[in-house]
Amino acid sequence: MSGEGEWIRMVTARTPTNIAVVKYWGKRDENLILPINDSISMTLDPDHLSTTTTVSVSPSFDSDRMWLNGKEISLSGDRFQNCLRELRSQASDFEDSEKGIKIEKKDWEKLHFHIASYNNFPTAAGLASSAAGFACLVFALANLMNVKANQSHLSAIARQGSGSACRSLFGGFVKWIMGKDSDGGDSVAVQLADENHWSDLVIIVAVVSAHQKETSSTSGMRETVETSALLQHREKVVVPKRIIEMEKAIEARDFASFAKLTCADSNQFHAVCLDTTPPIFYMNNTSHRIISCIEKWNKAEGAPQVAYTFDAGPNAVMVARDRKTAALLLQRMLYYFPPQSESDLDSYVVGDKSILKDAGIVGISDIEVLPVPSEVKDRVPPPPRSKGEVSYFICTRIGRGPVLLTEDAQALLDPNTGLPK
Amino acid sequence: MSGEGEWIRMVTARTPTNIAVVKYWGKRDENLILPINDSISMTLDPDHLSTTTTVSVSPSFDSDRMWLNGKEISLSGDRFQNCLRELRSQASDFEDSEKGIKIEKKDWEKLHFHIASYNNFPTAAGLASSAAGFACLVFALANLMNVKANQSHLSAIARQGSGSACRSLFGGFVKWIMGKDSDGGDSVAVQLADENHWSDLVIIVAVVSAHQKETSSTSGMRETVETSALLQHREKVVVPKRIIEMEKAIEARDFASFAKLTCADSNQFHAVCLDTTPPIFYMNNTSHRIISCIEKWNKAEGAPQVAYTFDAGPNAVMVARDRKTAALLLQRMLYYFPPQSESDLDSYVVGDKSILKDAGIVGISDIEVLPVPSEVKDRVPPPPRSKGEVSYFICTRIGRGPVLLTEDAQALLDPNTGLPK
Repeated sequence: MSGEGEWIRMVTARTPTNIAVVKYWGKRDENLILPINDSISMTLDPDHLSTTTTVSVSPSFDSDRMWLNGKEISLSGDRFQNCLRELRSQASDFEDSEKGIKIEKKDWEKLHFHIASYNNFPTAAGLASSAAGFACLVFALANLMNVKANQSHLSAIARQGSGSACRSLFGGFVKWIMGKDSDGGDSVAVQLADENHWSDLVIIVAVVSAHQKETSSTSGMRETVETSALLQHREKVVVPKRIIEMEKAIEARDFASFAKLTCADSNQFHAVCLDTTPPIFYMNNTSHRIISCIEKWNKAEGAPQVAYTFDAGPNAVMVARDRKTAALLLQRMLYYFPPQSESDLDSYVVGDKSILKDAGIVGISDIEVLPVPSEVKDRVPPPPRSKGEVSYFICTRIGRGPVLLTEDAQALLDPNTGLPK
Repeated sequence: MSGEGEWIRMVTARTPTNIAVVKYWGKRDENLILPINDSISMTLDPDHLSTTTTVSVSPSFDSDRMWLNGKEISLSGDRFQNCLRELRSQASDFEDSEKGIKIEKKDWEKLHFHIASYNNFPTAAGLASSAAGFACLVFALANLMNVKANQSHLSAIARQGSGSACRSLFGGFVKWIMGKDSDGGDSVAVQLADENHWSDLVIIVAVVSAHQKETSSTSGMRETVETSALLQHREKVVVPKRIIEMEKAIEARDFASFAKLTCADSNQFHAVCLDTTPPIFYMNNTSHRIISCIEKWNKAEGAPQVAYTFDAGPNAVMVARDRKTAALLLQRMLYYFPPQSESDLDSYVVGDKSILKDAGIVGISDIEVLPVPSEVKDRVPPPPRSKGEVSYFICTRIGRGPVLLTEDAQALLDPNTGLPK
């Protein structure tokens, strides 16, 4: 190690979130985070939902420190330490003669890190922030530490931070293979199709206001494994078949099958949560209303227009078959869930605002005059328009995997002090 | 048939509702109403929840007519006709020489009925009104038509009107044996224990305000049978074991086991509803809050104090282990779900009001000063007190089976005209 105390080496990366369409729920190994079944996810566009992380190393740092969204947090957790141990064991020599940096493999055991991480969406909103976060941390540190490993190999490391993080190492459609090995070496993510494979799809996320504190997914899935009488049947019989069908649906861009499987698997995941003692409720009345709205519409059209899926919280992730359908979906969502009077449209529908334009909505007043959706006309009168049930909508799409950000301006740490900018 | 046009024969009966603790959900024969699994229920005290039905026959009646809660309804439905056909085929000669009535078996094919039925609880509240209704209709008509059959035999007839009606032919704890025969002859109810076997138990029903129209249980269970990937496992593997355990728990008056099985089976029933395409939601946020309240309390006590179960709607049926616990439960319920300002206590807590007295509540002002339940103290602050989420509470107990009402004043039809009084 040369130039001690004088240099700071820094890497910045950005990594997407992902949403499972065949769900992961239940571990067979709590420490290594090995799942009881395969899962499949879509990677969401990092422009709208991603984590940016700057990792830095310097002989001048005397402890590992991390800042999340500007606030210092502890790194003493097992999950972070497990990732770090794996990365250190696979780190390589690094040399940058221009900057006078020379790090030998053995040095990584002693060197400390400063890490700053930032989500471009609310951390507390239940939008897979830990998946994007751990994926980004591992991806950035692997680059910093010159780890010679492919993305699947890195996914097995990220998996030990947060199970679903392994699926954020790739763009497009991703499968997390549960694996068989007791050390988890074969429990890795692989890409099924890249982000350009099915570019018609449009994703709208409804961030639903939650009043109740939710069960964390870690303790929730442990309780389901311990007490649900239905989970084993799901894991052994239902999911293996669904994984095969979902891979086919994705490959063939068969939206009807994709939607049917996605909705059924989301509902079954929430069913095994309910079959847990004590029961776990992640969806609320608003989630139920969103499902009813989509089911009714799909039925009226005679074929699925939109798929929905819910993770461990009340937020809906909706997938429209194409842009035209997405505009119709957004109209329906804004009809049923208008913004509160004091909200402005700009902060109520975020992300890819071109969908809003396609829907013909340029101001709050356009929402007030939206027609009753055709599928409810001449039938039961529509439920009252509920203000405030949805916090906001995010319009997005399927996106790419992790990238390194090379511009100095994009780093979250000061290159001279190694502290948050 | 003698005295034609001059006489009216009349029978009045009262029959209880019941609530399943191991649920019936799914038919193997839609027409005969044969279930895919055994179920077990508690019969509720008819003083608080029952149907009273007067059936009458006269040569002067020229069509079958029925009045439910004073409003005439159609009797053309298959279910009513199936019950009537069965009863006619098993009817016997009847003679009352004093009144000049003589009916031969063959006459029953031609005679018409007038029927009046009245529920002592709101029909629309989702409190098994069809179970009590069909049980009462069959029980009363069997008496009118001099059907020589025991209660289990009658239960197989009532079953063809509404599956769970068969369980309302007995008091106490009742098992509906699914049976094997294709004609349904062995799909009958039997009494496991009478209403005095476990008289410590106190039942409190929370009638929860529902905003959404619910899926009928008939179409709901058909959809679950057709689409749920988990139902078969429930029916073949989970329920048979639970039935044995529940019978043991009831026999031994083992409240801990009874509560565990009751709650788990209610939750699993709602889980398979959620696993249906499209998913069926019967519980709402209020139902979830009631469950959370009980689960938290049971956990804090280290042993179950109260069991809960929900049928095809948001209403909670809670079973307290004894009177003392029931008073504590009622305090908690009124703490979390106080009446709306304009409500009076008398109509907010109905049924056995002595529980209210035990809870130390004599007026609305006593509710306002209820202490925070001990299990939430020093932890997260309690959720806001929600007015209007619960319509009212019914305090009741396990009760007896059908009875004939012999006082003329109890009949719902005028003995001279055969029309509603």
